[in-house]
Amino acid sequence: MSLPAAVADLREQVCALHTELVRYGLVAWTAGNISGRVPGEDLFVIKPSGISYDDLTPASIVVCDLDGTLVDGELAPSSDTAAHAYVYRSRPDIGGVVHTHSPYATAWAARDEPIPCVLTAMADEFGGDIPVGPFALIGDDSIGQGIVATLAESRSPAVLMRNHGVFTVGKDAKAAVKAAVMCEDVARTVHIARSGGPLVPIDPGHIDSLYHRYQTVYGQR
Amino acid sequence: MSLPAAVADLREQVCALHTELVRYGLVAWTAGNISGRVPGEDLFVIKPSGISYDDLTPASIVVCDLDGTLVDGELAPSSDTAAHAYVYRSRPDIGGVVHTHSPYATAWAARDEPIPCVLTAMADEFGGDIPVGPFALIGDDSIGQGIVATLAESRSPAVLMRNHGVFTVGKDAKAAVKAAVMCEDVARTVHIARSGGPLVPIDPGHIDSLYHRYQTVYGQR
Amino acid sequence: MSLPAAVADLREQVCALHTELVRYGLVAWTAGNISGRVPGEDLFVIKPSGISYDDLTPASIVVCDLDGTLVDGELAPSSDTAAHAYVYRSRPDIGGVVHTHSPYATAWAARDEPIPCVLTAMADEFGGDIPVGPFALIGDDSIGQGIVATLAESRSPAVLMRNHGVFTVGKDAKAAVKAAVMCEDVARTVHIARSGGPLVPIDPGHIDSLYHRYQTVYGQR
Amino acid sequence: MSLPAAVADLREQVCALHTELVRYGLVAWTAGNISGRVPGEDLFVIKPSGISYDDLTPASIVVCDLDGTLVDGELAPSSDTAAHAYVYRSRPDIGGVVHTHSPYATAWAARDEPIPCVLTAMADEFGGDIPVGPFALIGDDSIGQGIVATLAESRSPAVLMRNHGVFTVGKDAKAAVKAAVMCEDVARTVHIARSGGPLVPIDPGHIDSLYHRYQTVYGQR
Repeated sequence: MSLPAAVADLREQVCALHTELVRYGLVAWTAGNISGRVPGEDLFVIKPSGISYDDLTPASIVVCDLDGTLVDGELAPSSDTAAHAYVYRSRPDIGGVVHTHSPYATAWAARDEPIPCVLTAMADEFGGDIPVGPFALIGDDSIGQGIVATLAESRSPAVLMRNHGVFTVGKDAKAAVKAAVMCEDVARTVHIARSGGPLVPIDPGHIDSLYHRYQTVYGQR
Repeated sequence: MSLPAAVADLREQVCALHTELVRYGLVAWTAGNISGRVPGEDLFVIKPSGISYDDLTPASIVVCDLDGTLVDGELAPSSDTAAHAYVYRSRPDIGGVVHTHSPYATAWAARDEPIPCVLTAMADEFGGDIPVGPFALIGDDSIGQGIVATLAESRSPAVLMRNHGVFTVGKDAKAAVKAAVMCEDVARTVHIARSGGPLVPIDPGHIDSLYHRYQTVYGQR
Repeated sequence: MSLPAAVADLREQVCALHTELVRYGLVAWTAGNISGRVPGEDLFVIKPSGISYDDLTPASIVVCDLDGTLVDGELAPSSDTAAHAYVYRSRPDIGGVVHTHSPYATAWAARDEPIPCVLTAMADEFGGDIPVGPFALIGDDSIGQGIVATLAESRSPAVLMRNHGVFTVGKDAKAAVKAAVMCEDVARTVHIARSGGPLVPIDPGHIDSLYHRYQTVYGQR
Repeated sequence: MSLPAAVADLREQVCALHTELVRYGLVAWTAGNISGRVPGEDLFVIKPSGISYDDLTPASIVVCDLDGTLVDGELAPSSDTAAHAYVYRSRPDIGGVVHTHSPYATAWAARDEPIPCVLTAMADEFGGDIPVGPFALIGDDSIGQGIVATLAESRSPAVLMRNHGVFTVGKDAKAAVKAAVMCEDVARTVHIARSGGPLVPIDPGHIDSLYHRYQTVYGQR
């Protein structure tokens, strides 16, 4: 099979984005992975399974089809490939998926408790609480189904999978990485805040205002 | 418009100071920003909106007037520019402003709770408790008004904005960065301290002594 | 005595693995140590006592026999050598041992409390709770006996020694280092989780499924 | 005055040791300082006041006599110089002093609560609880007196000064830095441990055994 020209660039981008997971302390050892959809194709690129972040190279990033079958690459794909594939099959608007066990976010998941939206930065990025999806075993579509069903009921690009960790999505891999970084950041701040006393809620109307403004005004146009 | 000669140096300083926000873990992704007043002019320089700390260069730092209007630069100014501008308009003695969502300080803000002055280092730098300002939406002068009103009732160069984060001020951008670093440091230590049991207060007269000594004796003259 | 050819490579590997203890914040100053069995020999290599991680070189790593007696090297072996030696004597299947006082794991040890298996990543790597071994004084086989007896009743490659710290084992030194890294990671996440409210357990059958899958499917084959 | 030949080496050592305070996160901005006694002389070297750790050079380290008066150097000495001088005057056996506001240790100090000895690593280095000294204002011998009086009743080379921070001592500056690093390490682990439930004490006889063994056997002879 000859690969679309966009694959080479995407492998480089997705490889480089993994350094952000390390930089922000979202991953330990080889856990965690990033994928990115090949624009206009039924393909995505993803981290190989069990490879150290130090050893990742663009060439080591593998290419899979939307069933999660390896299409190009020397290494076995991430053990979470089926979950990524399910998300891409179900949500054509999604171009990037990230999975981590980042500690503070995973702590909320171990209690099956959503992260309440008490920070303007949460309203900006997540538009409300960060929800928890169901417990699901690895190995089939269960995790993917849990992610997609939970995302469908929320504006949040992050979902905490119960007793497991975090999945985030975005229009591309970089946006999903941003959501993973911000998810851990707010998971930590809200945990610390609540451990010191009662949280002050933000008015739902203010959450809506903040979300809409951030999604349309923040950054460079 | 021809720019004052001081702008080039200030762009370099303010650009470089952003690395301190990263070094001390005060910011995640592109959140947080520093500005510095152009001495003797109705102008200040500030971080552009949504730009990664890795990508900041002196040339990318933008120049605004005291209404927050872009005067020089290729990029859109920080989305917090209106708040910085309000502070500079209201307080001619202030030459630098910093904004972060640093986690421990923001945790106090999420509870609408001032940080009690139980450390000599807090007495030194903040002269008492670090106060909390009101909840305010981004987009007009509300945040700036909240900062200025709260600072007016305190010796603290830091104010926690409710459900939001930290704003600090100083005679120049470096002093405001120092206040942001020390604010997170004491927010963390006092949080940890109180989570283990009751805090021991410092006598208000001792807080005054420490503050006056530090403001006049510490450092090089 | 002429050393087996494998010793030179092993010294290099074990020296390099110590940088992972530093990178993941598992050690302070000179505390902590890694050893690796020389394949097919009654020998292992181990960190010298009280040497800074910056100063470790392959040549500084010492060689001991399975009684813990120095066989090759200029420096005195780790003060924990007797514990490592006991493990190698008792468990021919073990090729690597790591000891740290990593903070979150040691905190559980200071309460004599196992870490409950409430994360899929714990089920994967540890197959259940991480157990606590007895209090034991340094200086004879007591620590080694405590480690071996505790490991015998668990699938976990990590044991928390009461009031002391963590020992982990693996088929080689790298596997034991991975267990040490993951042990601290889950010790921290579960601590944070429980400090926010009740933990949600994982069904024991699901723990078994996760463990068996991870031990056979994860990574490259 | 002509300086003893040992001063040049000592300036270099003490300058370099400050990087350990940064590496272990014991200091923020310019807080914290290290001094070292000039062997056989009534002199010590110490960090200048308010200088950034990035800007410290051996030449910037100042020399003081045992009254704390500047003897050599371009910069004003640390604002904590009087406390260091008092310790050197009172305790000829002490060759190094370190002061930090490291967060977990300072948190215990903000509660006026000693750190209980529940870790073998604490028994090794501190020989028991880490004690708290009195509240004292900066500016005269009060802090020094508090340090010396508190150390006199303990085997610990670290004392927590109430509402302030940590002072550690040692036979030389490096030993005092080690004590400062280990003090924060155990302050953190014991804080985390106790925040999860009751601590298990170590038998006082075992603390004695561990302390005596560590002080005589650990490291290279």
